[in-house]
Amino acid sequence: MIVEIISTGTELLLGQINTDAPYLAKRLNELGYSVLFQSTVGDNRERMSQVIQTALSRSDIVITSGGLGPTQGDITKEVTASVLNLSMYLHEASVERIKRFFAQRHLGMAHSNLRQAMMPEGAIVVDNTCGTAPGVILELANGKVIIHLPGPPRELTVMFDQSVIPYLNRRFGVQGSIVSKVLRTYGLGEPLLEERIHQFILAQGNPTIALLAKGGEIHVRLTAKGESHAEAQKLITDLENKIYPYISDYIFGFDGETLEYITGRLLAAKNFTIALAESCTGGLVSSRLTDIPGSSNYFTGSVVCYSNHIKIEEVGVSAAILEKFGAVSQETALSMAEGIQRKFSADIGIGITGIAGPGGATPNKPVGLVYIAVSGPKGTALHEHFFNGSRLDIKNRTALTALNELRKYLLSL
Amino acid sequence: MIVEIISTGTELLLGQINTDAPYLAKRLNELGYSVLFQSTVGDNRERMSQVIQTALSRSDIVITSGGLGPTQGDITKEVTASVLNLSMYLHEASVERIKRFFAQRHLGMAHSNLRQAMMPEGAIVVDNTCGTAPGVILELANGKVIIHLPGPPRELTVMFDQSVIPYLNRRFGVQGSIVSKVLRTYGLGEPLLEERIHQFILAQGNPTIALLAKGGEIHVRLTAKGESHAEAQKLITDLENKIYPYISDYIFGFDGETLEYITGRLLAAKNFTIALAESCTGGLVSSRLTDIPGSSNYFTGSVVCYSNHIKIEEVGVSAAILEKFGAVSQETALSMAEGIQRKFSADIGIGITGIAGPGGATPNKPVGLVYIAVSGPKGTALHEHFFNGSRLDIKNRTALTALNELRKYLLSL
Repeated sequence: MIVEIISTGTELLLGQINTDAPYLAKRLNELGYSVLFQSTVGDNRERMSQVIQTALSRSDIVITSGGLGPTQGDITKEVTASVLNLSMYLHEASVERIKRFFAQRHLGMAHSNLRQAMMPEGAIVVDNTCGTAPGVILELANGKVIIHLPGPPRELTVMFDQSVIPYLNRRFGVQGSIVSKVLRTYGLGEPLLEERIHQFILAQGNPTIALLAKGGEIHVRLTAKGESHAEAQKLITDLENKIYPYISDYIFGFDGETLEYITGRLLAAKNFTIALAESCTGGLVSSRLTDIPGSSNYFTGSVVCYSNHIKIEEVGVSAAILEKFGAVSQETALSMAEGIQRKFSADIGIGITGIAGPGGATPNKPVGLVYIAVSGPKGTALHEHFFNGSRLDIKNRTALTALNELRKYLLSL
Repeated sequence: MIVEIISTGTELLLGQINTDAPYLAKRLNELGYSVLFQSTVGDNRERMSQVIQTALSRSDIVITSGGLGPTQGDITKEVTASVLNLSMYLHEASVERIKRFFAQRHLGMAHSNLRQAMMPEGAIVVDNTCGTAPGVILELANGKVIIHLPGPPRELTVMFDQSVIPYLNRRFGVQGSIVSKVLRTYGLGEPLLEERIHQFILAQGNPTIALLAKGGEIHVRLTAKGESHAEAQKLITDLENKIYPYISDYIFGFDGETLEYITGRLLAAKNFTIALAESCTGGLVSSRLTDIPGSSNYFTGSVVCYSNHIKIEEVGVSAAILEKFGAVSQETALSMAEGIQRKFSADIGIGITGIAGPGGATPNKPVGLVYIAVSGPKGTALHEHFFNGSRLDIKNRTALTALNELRKYLLSL
């Protein structure tokens, strides 16, 4: 069953972020419908008419959002009525409901609000429990359906979940089950990751495989359709088991599991505490680690040590090391990790130093040069990195990499 | 000049939020172009071909995002080539640039990356300064133009601003002028802020006024159209001067100016240094402050002090205070601010303690209770707050509020 989502509203063409279409797309996919097109059009009769005609020609179900309000710019129902050659009438039950809505809130009702109760003949009127504009379902002679939903996200989501889903289930039957699973990877670029599982991507059908770059991570998303949830789930598990060995070095978690969540779980499982000395990340790694509820059980604290003075006094880096090798060096990172571990009496210490830019580079030390040290019961692991991008990109990549190196260190114990 | 934006990528049909199309729409509108349609289509040859044909039939300029990557799912250029009956060739300069991109980063290049250098004949190739996929501009015999941009937002925005805008100006001339200005506010909720400037919102025409909630801030965006930049600019300035007195207490900056940027500028202007003792924010305020290039001139360092032990040893909070008043108390916040200021020899000290939740509440101290102290040459300012929302919401609100209180403290000196 092919669905097309049409978002109406000039504000979207001016650059407002659309959250209605993603919501509908996500829910419809979960229900087993294929959303193949999304269109956005302004509050203009001719162009909206074109877009609705195109959608009805290529899709089984067309769902619009927006344009059901009381103003002259709200024209969605009228445009559909003219596309389908339907007349409009005043739907008395909606008039009563809208009047009640205003009376209950001790608000005056503008006459224009009655526009919201005008309906194309033959419409199935859908009550709006969060606002005034009713929704509309029209069943066409050729079996297709067009559904008009209000634009405000709260009204749209509630109406869709409470009324439209039950309608779709009655009208088209349950569409089977869709199960999705995300394998979250870090540390290998998208093309090289794809090369490793190329054979599976080429051979994909059901489940599908999609690679997505997300905030520095690469996500591998498997999506399966089945008659039942169990069937779809089995298809996912089978494919995952095949793919896993090729990229297991880079998979750190699944679905909603972030690097800070995974490392936090490992720390908690081993009953370890952690302390950090952060220079170029400026506290970002500590902030990420403490995003996790319960992190106070393993996170003792950290020192953000931008100045050499703080590195010496508060972290215990020796002035001689700073002088000889510089603040951005292997030796300093090592000394930071070991110093903070000792000073905060933690099981694990992390030291991070680098040049986030745009200033601070020297001939031998470019912007993006970063050293990360992780010290603990098995000695100290140290890595050198060259990151690129803006100051924020470099901070973000450094933070993710530090969390990933912490994860690997913990797994190696 | 009518523009249509086509977003490609199956992930968008599955419900991922689209930020590329809003970005392009916003910029194009500012430049005076009319964005009349937006379409979204998956990585499917036949359907993408349909959508591109429809767009070329009704718009003068068609801009696509996505599908220029190295994978088999990246088909945008090929689809356009087949719609326009163009053959594809390997663009040697792009091959060299992509090879250099990988070599500079000491990364291996997958063979599939060369797909990104395949171009439709006659293409104007646009360099990608942030990634590997070049952009493509094709000028059709009928005067229309189709432009392919990469999907990753950073690559798309930089390429659009650096290369596409100059191209459009050359090809189509300057389209009149739109000027926008954002007044960034913090500390007053959207309904109350709207009430203060209600008369201007009701009377708006050109310029328009829009209120937008953004990551805890409320933005007031003024947008004016004029024949010239100067004319549009004057309209903005006139309206801004009228609105300003009503909300001046809450405006902290304009356009791209973040709270960390504004506070950083104030610190630098006064030649002050700052140090922080962060508990419930876990390093987030330090990370924000160090997002600003050059922050090493005023940011000395901070201690993230989750455990009482660290508060005592590293920040200098007295054990007696912690015992008597608890870690989340006015007295502890005060002592943290003054302790870190002294210990790190900084001009300004900030102490933040609170309960980010979901655990940690007591009968007298609910989740969301936060104390923020700012100490400096004029003594110590202390505020109590009750924030709500998730752990991340509370961390974010606390960080913004701390930056705002730092700003007010600095302005009061």
